Amino acid sequence: MTTKKLGKQTFALASPPSIAGHANAVGKKEGEGPLAASFDLIQEDTTFGENSWEKAESTMQKLALSSALDKASLAASQLDFIFAGDLLNQCVGSSYHVRDLGVPFFGVYGACSTMAESLSLAALMLDGGYGEWGAAVTSSHFCSAERQYRTPLEYGGQRTPTAQWTVTGAGAVVLAREGQGPYVTHVTVGKVVDKGIKDANNMGAAMAPAAYDTISAHFQDTHRTPSFYDLIVTGDLGTLGKEIVTDFFHRDGIDLAGRYNDCGTMIYDIEGQDVHCGGSGCGCCASVLTGYLLNGMRAGRWKNLLFCATGALLSPTSIQQGESIPSICHAVAISTEK
Amino acid sequence: MTTKKLGKQTFALASPPSIAGHANAVGKKEGEGPLAASFDLIQEDTTFGENSWEKAESTMQKLALSSALDKASLAASQLDFIFAGDLLNQCVGSSYHVRDLGVPFFGVYGACSTMAESLSLAALMLDGGYGEWGAAVTSSHFCSAERQYRTPLEYGGQRTPTAQWTVTGAGAVVLAREGQGPYVTHVTVGKVVDKGIKDANNMGAAMAPAAYDTISAHFQDTHRTPSFYDLIVTGDLGTLGKEIVTDFFHRDGIDLAGRYNDCGTMIYDIEGQDVHCGGSGCGCCASVLTGYLLNGMRAGRWKNLLFCATGALLSPTSIQQGESIPSICHAVAISTEK
Repeated sequence: MTTKKLGKQTFALASPPSIAGHANAVGKKEGEGPLAASFDLIQEDTTFGENSWEKAESTMQKLALSSALDKASLAASQLDFIFAGDLLNQCVGSSYHVRDLGVPFFGVYGACSTMAESLSLAALMLDGGYGEWGAAVTSSHFCSAERQYRTPLEYGGQRTPTAQWTVTGAGAVVLAREGQGPYVTHVTVGKVVDKGIKDANNMGAAMAPAAYDTISAHFQDTHRTPSFYDLIVTGDLGTLGKEIVTDFFHRDGIDLAGRYNDCGTMIYDIEGQDVHCGGSGCGCCASVLTGYLLNGMRAGRWKNLLFCATGALLSPTSIQQGESIPSICHAVAISTEK
Repeated sequence: MTTKKLGKQTFALASPPSIAGHANAVGKKEGEGPLAASFDLIQEDTTFGENSWEKAESTMQKLALSSALDKASLAASQLDFIFAGDLLNQCVGSSYHVRDLGVPFFGVYGACSTMAESLSLAALMLDGGYGEWGAAVTSSHFCSAERQYRTPLEYGGQRTPTAQWTVTGAGAVVLAREGQGPYVTHVTVGKVVDKGIKDANNMGAAMAPAAYDTISAHFQDTHRTPSFYDLIVTGDLGTLGKEIVTDFFHRDGIDLAGRYNDCGTMIYDIEGQDVHCGGSGCGCCASVLTGYLLNGMRAGRWKNLLFCATGALLSPTSIQQGESIPSICHAVAISTEK
């Protein structure tokens, strides 16, 4: 049996790779949120023992991957390849982390969609027979993101109501060509969608149309309906973006109620932790996937998950130049059965 | 026949994809260099009609891809996927360009190795049967790179003797699962190598060990010797980095003389154009590959080419924090015969 291309964007994998290991490392605030019990490592000191926030981010990636490899009983040297990326300029969170590993490396940039992009590519590579073991890794850090995208922390800038809080966290997934479930069964590759939103403090509204576009394509391509999935999660749309996606599907006569959630609204206590519209950053859905979601699948809570990570492909420079925010969403179907 | 993994890093493609179209767009200085005749579009006005250097870079990508698609007699909408990336923070050269295309998109970040990384992934995807048509695109712009990595042009900063000149150029390759040669026959995926060089004005020395590492792995994995190739080209090591690679192989008893060159030394008249150690940037090897090299292969000048794009995975922030420069090189074997 060979992998089928369904429609324009979706692949139904003939040999769904096994998720052999998954782990995360997060910061103090994430460890005070509702998903605390699902994290592998909660670090009170968000420097992670380093002397810069950027180095802290690399260290988080290292800790998450190392823990995921342990769970898969694998040495890093056995990996055939790593796909990794992050939000930092030139993706230095990833490149400085992987330089110690000696593993073939593909750097990716998908902003906060990176976990789904790297997971998609790693799964397709294993499905295609290009190796036995692969890893997908990403991270974000509140402090490095604030100073790079907004203002230095010392400035004490006000946050607008639609702002989100960048998650300090890293997630890693180790995939195996053969093994036990959960499995990556389908990949729907996103297109860049830009509906003209120019407010960099309203990422949820900018990314929601991309999420709607990819999830709709997934349903069309696979002839599945939302009811096939026990849970559909978007990456980091936050409360506003989640409402927009729900509303878009409602207009199509599709009710997502009860089976749709967003990692940005799940990772924090939205009211209690003063995060405005919720969490964001590559590490948001990466740490929710590698903790709460995959742990829940292993515990039998869900059989079929559609993981849809969303990314806003702007830069501070493009926003200063008056540009709108191009966004993307990649969707990965994960199932406990092949 | 299935694709073979050779050694740790190399894939011998069972169904080598065809290079159906290739094109580039470059700036004034590149059009004054020795490879001028091989460029599809030379723009005297390096703004490319835009009001920012970043937008000019997106436009260059658009022009290069559009021309490559024309040569392949293909509409953009027929592409199954695009792999693209660039040097700009958050790779905005690529994401703003692809938003108009409506094609499934994978963003990659490999610094100046991006042409080889995107070409490798696109080739592996087609070889694996995940589509019929794919594209690999990248760019760099002297003016956007100078202000992002070094100083604004208006500052008039002095350049050190080991500095290189960022190429203003974009290159695009359109690959087809079936078709005429040249073909992508092998891919050797790079590992991140860091030998401790901390001088961001000496990228050639920082990247040379990565080039040596990947090219050596390619020879070991394939059991080929340099004599198999009519030409081995590295991406943008410049004169110093090229000397280092030549010297490293010389120490192994391997003489590359007469069949090794570097795109950074080829694209400019090194002395006459005052570029110190030569050209650099994602657009350097991308425009040399999609012009001089692939045109030469089509004209029968070379049968077997090993294209080895090198990338320095630093950021200005990582250098300010005292870090050394992690580097990578991906190698792609291109042949006129399968």
